[in-house]
Amino acid sequence: MSNSIDFYFDIISPYSYIAYKKILRTQNIKFNYKPILLGGLHKLEGITAPAFNTHKMKNMKNDCELVAYKNEIKFSWNSKFPINSLYMMRGYLVLEDDKKIHYLDSFFNAYWKDNLDLNEKENIIKLLENLEIDSKHFFEAIESENVKDKLKKFTLDAFEKNVFGAPTFIVNKKIFWGQDRLEYALDEILK
Amino acid sequence: MSNSIDFYFDIISPYSYIAYKKILRTQNIKFNYKPILLGGLHKLEGITAPAFNTHKMKNMKNDCELVAYKNEIKFSWNSKFPINSLYMMRGYLVLEDDKKIHYLDSFFNAYWKDNLDLNEKENIIKLLENLEIDSKHFFEAIESENVKDKLKKFTLDAFEKNVFGAPTFIVNKKIFWGQDRLEYALDEILK
Repeated sequence: MSNSIDFYFDIISPYSYIAYKKILRTQNIKFNYKPILLGGLHKLEGITAPAFNTHKMKNMKNDCELVAYKNEIKFSWNSKFPINSLYMMRGYLVLEDDKKIHYLDSFFNAYWKDNLDLNEKENIIKLLENLEIDSKHFFEAIESENVKDKLKKFTLDAFEKNVFGAPTFIVNKKIFWGQDRLEYALDEILK
Repeated sequence: MSNSIDFYFDIISPYSYIAYKKILRTQNIKFNYKPILLGGLHKLEGITAPAFNTHKMKNMKNDCELVAYKNEIKFSWNSKFPINSLYMMRGYLVLEDDKKIHYLDSFFNAYWKDNLDLNEKENIIKLLENLEIDSKHFFEAIESENVKDKLKKFTLDAFEKNVFGAPTFIVNKKIFWGQDRLEYALDEILK
């Protein structure tokens, strides 16, 4: 039996942001943060993301706004959605453990609450400075083969565990897909 | 302001079945049943249904079983899923109004509760007989151009209203996609 919940996420995914905010409200449950490149995973799965279908995209925006509102989560649709999250997700991997959660908080909020353009290097540098992360070192590190391979490996690991989207929760080898299913994942671990 | 909820469904969709069962439990809310051919809608949208992706399909089965269990809805994954729902959905259109809800109940239950093979004409005839529907007339009617066009028109109407999946609820021109969102549709109409 699992004593923790695996949480697969990508910062680019608005439902991952909502799930993350819900996770912060849980108590006495351990979550293992599993960063993936959602675009890469979709490619492995042969899935077209909702962002690339007009009606699905429109619905996703409305739905996220509504779910966030109902759950009292501050949310603002990012006007530059979607962007490539490769650098953001590699960035998560280069950080010391004690910086990771602050980084996640900062980048999730910047993108899904404050409508920041995270294609702009200046904006990223500002966020890193606020976190006291050396941006020169950060930008060098995310270009290293080691880090590139790590994100690929994490994404491939997710694929091999039948994960096909984000957010996904895994408890007792059972897959729960979507922020709507965090509740079921919690039921599973508490039963 | 709407005084009723439009409910877009296809009998082939397990989440439509779950939504339908939830609808039966609501009180004092009028639902307008909007039959569509989900396969046709997906084609118009350029969407690959989850049934045609291995991991999504596996997840859909587990998820439906879990959602049904949590909501105390009797459910059994159909071992012949997916099948073409063209005849079933055309069949809904040829019936008198007072027969429609019984037909729906019978076919939803046969497919998603009793694991009946609805590719088998014999099974369909048996269901029709139980409903005192003349099966000879039924099979003739579903081949008529008028009925073919009607289902196409209903599906196209849904597409033009930005419906891209089933079940979908529309209230006050707002779209709520998925059985998970019936609650929000009810909130919308009751506010």
